[in-house]
Amino acid sequence: MQKSALFSFVSLLFVFINVQSQNFESDSLMLKEIYKTALTDGKSHEWLDYIANNIGGRLSGSIQEEQMIAYTESQLNELGLDKVWKQPVMVPKWTRGFKEYAYIESANGVNNVVDILALGGSVATPNLGIKAEVIEVKSLEEIAKLGESKISGKIVFINRPMNPEHIHTFSAYGEVSRLRFYGAAEAAKYGAVGMIIRSLGLRLDDYPHTGGMSYGDLPEEKKIPAAAISTNGAEYLSSMLRLNPSLKFYFKINSKNWPDVQSYNVIGELKGSEYPEKYMLVGAHLDSWDVGDGAHDDGAGVAQSMEVLRIFKKIGYQPKHTIRIVLFANEENGLRGGRKYAEEAKRKNERHLFALESDAGGFSPRGFSIDTDQANLEQINSWKKLFEPYFIHVFRPGYSAPDLTPLKGYCDVLVGLLPDSQRYFDVHHAVTDTFDKINKRELELGAAAMASLLYLFDTYGTQ
Amino acid sequence: MQKSALFSFVSLLFVFINVQSQNFESDSLMLKEIYKTALTDGKSHEWLDYIANNIGGRLSGSIQEEQMIAYTESQLNELGLDKVWKQPVMVPKWTRGFKEYAYIESANGVNNVVDILALGGSVATPNLGIKAEVIEVKSLEEIAKLGESKISGKIVFINRPMNPEHIHTFSAYGEVSRLRFYGAAEAAKYGAVGMIIRSLGLRLDDYPHTGGMSYGDLPEEKKIPAAAISTNGAEYLSSMLRLNPSLKFYFKINSKNWPDVQSYNVIGELKGSEYPEKYMLVGAHLDSWDVGDGAHDDGAGVAQSMEVLRIFKKIGYQPKHTIRIVLFANEENGLRGGRKYAEEAKRKNERHLFALESDAGGFSPRGFSIDTDQANLEQINSWKKLFEPYFIHVFRPGYSAPDLTPLKGYCDVLVGLLPDSQRYFDVHHAVTDTFDKINKRELELGAAAMASLLYLFDTYGTQ
Repeated sequence: MQKSALFSFVSLLFVFINVQSQNFESDSLMLKEIYKTALTDGKSHEWLDYIANNIGGRLSGSIQEEQMIAYTESQLNELGLDKVWKQPVMVPKWTRGFKEYAYIESANGVNNVVDILALGGSVATPNLGIKAEVIEVKSLEEIAKLGESKISGKIVFINRPMNPEHIHTFSAYGEVSRLRFYGAAEAAKYGAVGMIIRSLGLRLDDYPHTGGMSYGDLPEEKKIPAAAISTNGAEYLSSMLRLNPSLKFYFKINSKNWPDVQSYNVIGELKGSEYPEKYMLVGAHLDSWDVGDGAHDDGAGVAQSMEVLRIFKKIGYQPKHTIRIVLFANEENGLRGGRKYAEEAKRKNERHLFALESDAGGFSPRGFSIDTDQANLEQINSWKKLFEPYFIHVFRPGYSAPDLTPLKGYCDVLVGLLPDSQRYFDVHHAVTDTFDKINKRELELGAAAMASLLYLFDTYGTQ
Repeated sequence: MQKSALFSFVSLLFVFINVQSQNFESDSLMLKEIYKTALTDGKSHEWLDYIANNIGGRLSGSIQEEQMIAYTESQLNELGLDKVWKQPVMVPKWTRGFKEYAYIESANGVNNVVDILALGGSVATPNLGIKAEVIEVKSLEEIAKLGESKISGKIVFINRPMNPEHIHTFSAYGEVSRLRFYGAAEAAKYGAVGMIIRSLGLRLDDYPHTGGMSYGDLPEEKKIPAAAISTNGAEYLSSMLRLNPSLKFYFKINSKNWPDVQSYNVIGELKGSEYPEKYMLVGAHLDSWDVGDGAHDDGAGVAQSMEVLRIFKKIGYQPKHTIRIVLFANEENGLRGGRKYAEEAKRKNERHLFALESDAGGFSPRGFSIDTDQANLEQINSWKKLFEPYFIHVFRPGYSAPDLTPLKGYCDVLVGLLPDSQRYFDVHHAVTDTFDKINKRELELGAAAMASLLYLFDTYGTQ
């Protein structure tokens, strides 16, 4: 390199570094204050304790969901935000009814009871339950391939373990969640009388995991009941089938689908000082499944989102843009809250710059999953150094979070908080998702990471 | 930049990238195989289940420690290593005896029982226990400052919470562990009759945490009994003291110090193909405290270290250097195993290049803490990209791990595995350190990270 070229390159670098480190200093201090407030004077754990232990599982249309809406609205009001309101949205109502019952009929007449959980939205079995032979498959394609001759009159048993080789467990979930969502509809096409799916979890245990499903456009009389069996149960059923392919499986589900009911997104606002008409959003979903107490999914996200605004108030941070907290209704079995919010935002032509959701558990935060363009990605990457002291290292382009997907193409930057994912599918949608699985500091660190990213976007805007 | 300068710069870069990516490719594949083996065909969880649930807490000199030595030796033998042996080392023997008992005497005659745990090495109280007034302090310096007039005849109560602002919780532990270690000796100097310390944990709960301590060179008759009180207990005692500074605290400890007993480091070797006389070490400590089952501290490390060698055997990896697994005796209350190992290595003039210990819990691995020179640090940093797919991001210069410290200055590179630290001090040295706090995948990911780093050092040597 010639001297002059080198010189101009170095001086350019110097200017760049200098400018950067000025901001770096003040941003660093702000992140430090945010983290300190979350860790020494946090409220997220107390909120989550109430949500999990005083409200509990809060499926759309349940009394607990009503309590959750009332509680979060009252807590947002206590934060002294500039505005708090409820955005009406109609949501599906499905009830589990009396506990499910299932057994594997054995050759010697002794029935082996196994734990199942109806999938959300499943129709009930007839009053006397269903008893039928079982056909085990690994994929939707296998169902189609086997066809009516092999499927008709049987219970389809989808036994596909999550792939343990993925380090990010959500990648493994992504590969199999469509089996749960479309499995019953696909099996019904070929005359199956029921669908049982291996729980979507990485651990071998006795707890079935429920989750959303769809019958697509199947007519009412064609719908078949669908349930998840625990991973241990699936292993057991599969080994029994190898010994006796014509064994019969019995199950009874007492669920019911009701007409849609009124629900609400709970929304609060801190008015922006410079750009009050430009919105930056932080949120989570207020509903959960009916089993467990929804501590990780998504009580944690709700408590963290409220904590972000509480921290800003507490440290006296006055945002430039209007910061909105949105607690979405009905993520689990409909996404109606997320859709309604986006619909209304577009209808009112509200300019949305940034949205961040926490819906991947309250575990130790590792980083963010970011759905945006190159310019905004680069901006986020330029902040990496700021996050290093807080062990936030992952800035991963890709899918953000469920309730934000209806904002795609409308909001510049969509982000999902990325906590450590190893324990998540041990509790996801199961009775094991309870408050005792929460570590206070991990929850608080997640809230602090969220507040930090929101602060940076509020300070520098989107690209 | 002028064209020629730019051109030579770019071509240099191209050569560099080209060379790097050749190795990168094959190293990448090797790490992938290591991780796959750990996650789909791992044995660490099964080993740890046995250690925690069939052996349990295994303090130096206990029957459980003997069982642990026999079990790990037999398991290493089953791995088909080139050599497995026991290295004799004398260790201290201290027994807790009958459970401790303590209460805060209240004005109205109703005593409030609180949970305490004698510190390891503490002398017993007299048979009838000790009842005395309490003086609360925050530091060793405060004890010295208060002096004999304020301390004599009293129980010194060290009530210093761990600082929650540290993100890496071991930094908070480092600030206060000396209070536990030297507190009783310091208080005794000024005539205190006992020492009670707030447990070193970040959570408010009812479980006291024990740990090592020293009386320094205090004569036998000057030694005073020392115990930890739970964090909730400490808060309670402190608030009671504010109401009534002259309240009395009663405690009884039934511990005993015995003469040293015979123990062993358990060692195994995979002989190196190119440099059989150069050693690379992986290890953990086989002892634990007597409370809980020592699942995280340090059963996890033992299972992970054995898993590293099992993976190498399983995938048919033939190391260039001799790889040694060392399961150290007596880390908790003496470090005699670590000292003995280093002493013998030096005596035999064994060339040690690299040593890696896992002794910070079996949680999701975040990276490594590395004690070495600049050249080796740079080499490790050049491997960062290889670890990224596995969410290993932290390569932190500094303290490595306890049993490796006697090798400092003798072994080129000392490394401690760095797992997520948020939950560690909830269980550390307490009854809460049990197998149910272990997540199988987190444990396996730690073993895979260890095997990966060892593979890279074996392949490229130290600098």
